[in-house]
Amino acid sequence: MDGRNLIGFAYIDTDTAAFKATDPATGKELDGNFFPASQELVDQAMQLAVAAHARFKHIGKDQKAAFLRAIAEGIEAIAPALTERASTESGLPLARLQGELGRTTGQLRLFANVVEEGSWVEAVIDTADASRQPLPKPDIRKMLVPIGPVVVFGASNFPLAFSVAGGDTASALAAGCPVVVKAHPAHPGTSALVAEAIHMAAIAHDIPEGVFSILYDDSYTVGEALVKHPHTKAVTFTGSYNGGMALEKIARQRGVPIPVFAEMGSINPVILLPGVLNSRAAELANQYAASITLGAGQFCTNPGLLLAVRSPALDVLEENLKAAITAIPSATMLTPGIYQNYTGKVKQMLDNQGVSVIASSELKREGAENQALATVARVTAQQLINDPHLAEEVFGPYSLLVVADDEQQLAQLIGTLPGQLTVTFMANADELTHFRPLIDQAAELAGRIILNSVPTGVEVCAAMQHGGPFPATSDSRFTSVGTSAIRRFVRPLAWQGWDNANLPDELKDDNPLQIWRTLDQQWTKDQYGK
Amino acid sequence: MDGRNLIGFAYIDTDTAAFKATDPATGKELDGNFFPASQELVDQAMQLAVAAHARFKHIGKDQKAAFLRAIAEGIEAIAPALTERASTESGLPLARLQGELGRTTGQLRLFANVVEEGSWVEAVIDTADASRQPLPKPDIRKMLVPIGPVVVFGASNFPLAFSVAGGDTASALAAGCPVVVKAHPAHPGTSALVAEAIHMAAIAHDIPEGVFSILYDDSYTVGEALVKHPHTKAVTFTGSYNGGMALEKIARQRGVPIPVFAEMGSINPVILLPGVLNSRAAELANQYAASITLGAGQFCTNPGLLLAVRSPALDVLEENLKAAITAIPSATMLTPGIYQNYTGKVKQMLDNQGVSVIASSELKREGAENQALATVARVTAQQLINDPHLAEEVFGPYSLLVVADDEQQLAQLIGTLPGQLTVTFMANADELTHFRPLIDQAAELAGRIILNSVPTGVEVCAAMQHGGPFPATSDSRFTSVGTSAIRRFVRPLAWQGWDNANLPDELKDDNPLQIWRTLDQQWTKDQYGK
Repeated sequence: MDGRNLIGFAYIDTDTAAFKATDPATGKELDGNFFPASQELVDQAMQLAVAAHARFKHIGKDQKAAFLRAIAEGIEAIAPALTERASTESGLPLARLQGELGRTTGQLRLFANVVEEGSWVEAVIDTADASRQPLPKPDIRKMLVPIGPVVVFGASNFPLAFSVAGGDTASALAAGCPVVVKAHPAHPGTSALVAEAIHMAAIAHDIPEGVFSILYDDSYTVGEALVKHPHTKAVTFTGSYNGGMALEKIARQRGVPIPVFAEMGSINPVILLPGVLNSRAAELANQYAASITLGAGQFCTNPGLLLAVRSPALDVLEENLKAAITAIPSATMLTPGIYQNYTGKVKQMLDNQGVSVIASSELKREGAENQALATVARVTAQQLINDPHLAEEVFGPYSLLVVADDEQQLAQLIGTLPGQLTVTFMANADELTHFRPLIDQAAELAGRIILNSVPTGVEVCAAMQHGGPFPATSDSRFTSVGTSAIRRFVRPLAWQGWDNANLPDELKDDNPLQIWRTLDQQWTKDQYGK
Repeated sequence: MDGRNLIGFAYIDTDTAAFKATDPATGKELDGNFFPASQELVDQAMQLAVAAHARFKHIGKDQKAAFLRAIAEGIEAIAPALTERASTESGLPLARLQGELGRTTGQLRLFANVVEEGSWVEAVIDTADASRQPLPKPDIRKMLVPIGPVVVFGASNFPLAFSVAGGDTASALAAGCPVVVKAHPAHPGTSALVAEAIHMAAIAHDIPEGVFSILYDDSYTVGEALVKHPHTKAVTFTGSYNGGMALEKIARQRGVPIPVFAEMGSINPVILLPGVLNSRAAELANQYAASITLGAGQFCTNPGLLLAVRSPALDVLEENLKAAITAIPSATMLTPGIYQNYTGKVKQMLDNQGVSVIASSELKREGAENQALATVARVTAQQLINDPHLAEEVFGPYSLLVVADDEQQLAQLIGTLPGQLTVTFMANADELTHFRPLIDQAAELAGRIILNSVPTGVEVCAAMQHGGPFPATSDSRFTSVGTSAIRRFVRPLAWQGWDNANLPDELKDDNPLQIWRTLDQQWTKDQYGK
């Protein structure tokens, strides 16, 4: 792997001090030197990106789709080495990373399909009517066009699926936008391997130089410079609230503000309705113990809050949750920083008056570092209402069971919660009608409402919404997972009065790309005039 | 007309000092007292709005469409009095306001159609696959849902079409969002008349109280309080750059930031290509003299910049422009403030070295106040490149002709321009291929590119994009005109694992509303399972 910054098609030598990757399970440095980029390299990458934009936006859909598929193939070609490196750098199990690799290549192919099918540009044609009174109606046609260079921040918790060739990159390239990746310093080797796959795919498919670059940094300097750069048109970020808001602030203070699509904090409340608790409290406890501890709890959709009304069945759930959580062995966290933050936050939460521990695993893996021990705590709804800070995200295998006195207090509590990626209801079929107002109220908080499942596990599909009201994400109108993620990187452009020879193919009368369009207010794949 | 604040269904007595409307043509006060709202009334309106949201979002499409149509009918029922009052308050000619009234009622009916047709919710269904390996695929369904209460700022330059029942209100109500209007103090009587029409329509169609309220203020206090209010979910504004950015700043500093859809400054460059100048310079001069002075130049799409390469034909255009502009009589501007700003800005522009006057009308209407005199000035491209401030918007009948030495300098100049609502090309058919790179470059600046027409006159249709890169608008991904304007007030919400009984009609298997949906990646109006 080459740890130099890749600017367009060239690996650049720099004299900055190299940093190394660390195995969080052992604390040992891994092979490979990675070189923080300079302000000059940031500028070079963005200059190349904006120059590439002028050509890349006109590239045909087949070439773009082939490029995306070639990236997937390139990743698959190095799968064993890639997943092993990613596992060593992240502490995540190999099996999880093999699954994540499949998701990553699946995303790339999904967007290749979206590009090939072509209707995603939302072409709209309103034809002219010269005889309209009092004024003739002009010919106006509109479609989505790429906005230009996108800066993608790799995320620590998905070294493949939300990183160099993850969903952000795949959707931005599909939209026709050049991508400059800021590699996450926790997995630079994984990043370099994937970057090289993109590099080779770009060359093989005659993609303009500058459509992809990757920069390294183990501080905030390069990221900040990328967000500030005048050629940057949008930023994607998955991480902490503080990190997302810092980028958002920089982006807003630019001469020309740009959107930051930040996926930040969410505690994904799970509401356990009384009927389902009566029917299957023990089963729920096991299901949720697994969800809370999946990937060491390092998911945006980790269920950090379990809400229920006091009942004997809830006591059964608690007992079973205690047994399940206690039996779950520790897991390596992504970085020492994340581990320290987790243990500090858990301690801070448990120090609050009224917060008691239901279960805390003590099965620490011998001789391994940065080991997160799962913890589930308990608090009354009234205490959480009094102190909303208790509902802050604890990134890791932690969840808080909140016990309400009655349904009214449960509703009151939900009214105090901030925006979330997901809200889940566990319920029997016969209690849904009664609780419809509560479900309706909870839906206002969330981007996705789930019935009788766990929020972890985010399906990559057209109907997925992975983005909720602030502070879950910076903009609830967009998703970072699923085909709609492409919409983050486009804007509508209208053509008025142009003839077919000077219109893009998507808007020509004869619909050469055979895409779905809105033609004089009708959905159709037809040609105009036929 | 009743100039008290209308909060839900009640006109509220206040003890604030009343203000009056003024006829800008005479400077005389008009009848009617209008009462600035208090912080308390702001809170009442927003509390009612958020309570109404819980009911309004579930109201059926037929009832919502009937409500929108009833507003249109209510406005038509008072058309003579309404247009007369609007003309007196704004100084705009009666005929223009009659046209604007038609546009306003047309917009309301267009959105009634959109609601009734129903596909605007962009329903997407991905059905379950229990047999998928390695994990079963869940059932996920997604559609757009209303975000909640929207604050609409009435705009001075469209007292009907961008004001109380204008495109912002029509699209927000169509989306299912309650609307709280901050009436523009330049036309409070017009606002009160239209508000009463909405009020009556809401009662007649059993619309929840709080779906519409209107507040008055002749200072910034009420507007600021509305944008700050925690129940406000979005803001619309059409006006100056400074006004829009002030609201944007307030909205960003909230605990929970909200979008401000601000349509701000644009000078709408018009590029006159050499061939068309050779063919019809005189005709172009007359066409553009009319566009520059339409509505006293008080349009967001007023052509404030004419760009061309130096040529004898350009001299012919200049001569004809001079003759046409000089013959155009003065027109009353909307307010004394706008008039003073116009005269001050024109003087400031003309004071710049290198800026010379091509034509300045002297036909001032006798005995009338706030009379804008059309002015067209001239500068070299090099001077504009050196001093970009010369391209700032002058709101009124002013335009700057920019003369480039050659095509290269023209391209260089276009590269220095900020974002615009529109860019227009005047061209002969045979020169478009040669200038395609220039057209492509200019399209990056604009929300709409126009061939051989004028930017003034914004068609209300599905393909319209009225929103361009910053600073033309705060967010180029959205439009404030046309059916897509509804997208400003919605967000996607995904349902995972819900049965038909607990899904909205738009997402049920049997497609009871018969809308277009994406069902397992296929566009269809079919039922699922058929």
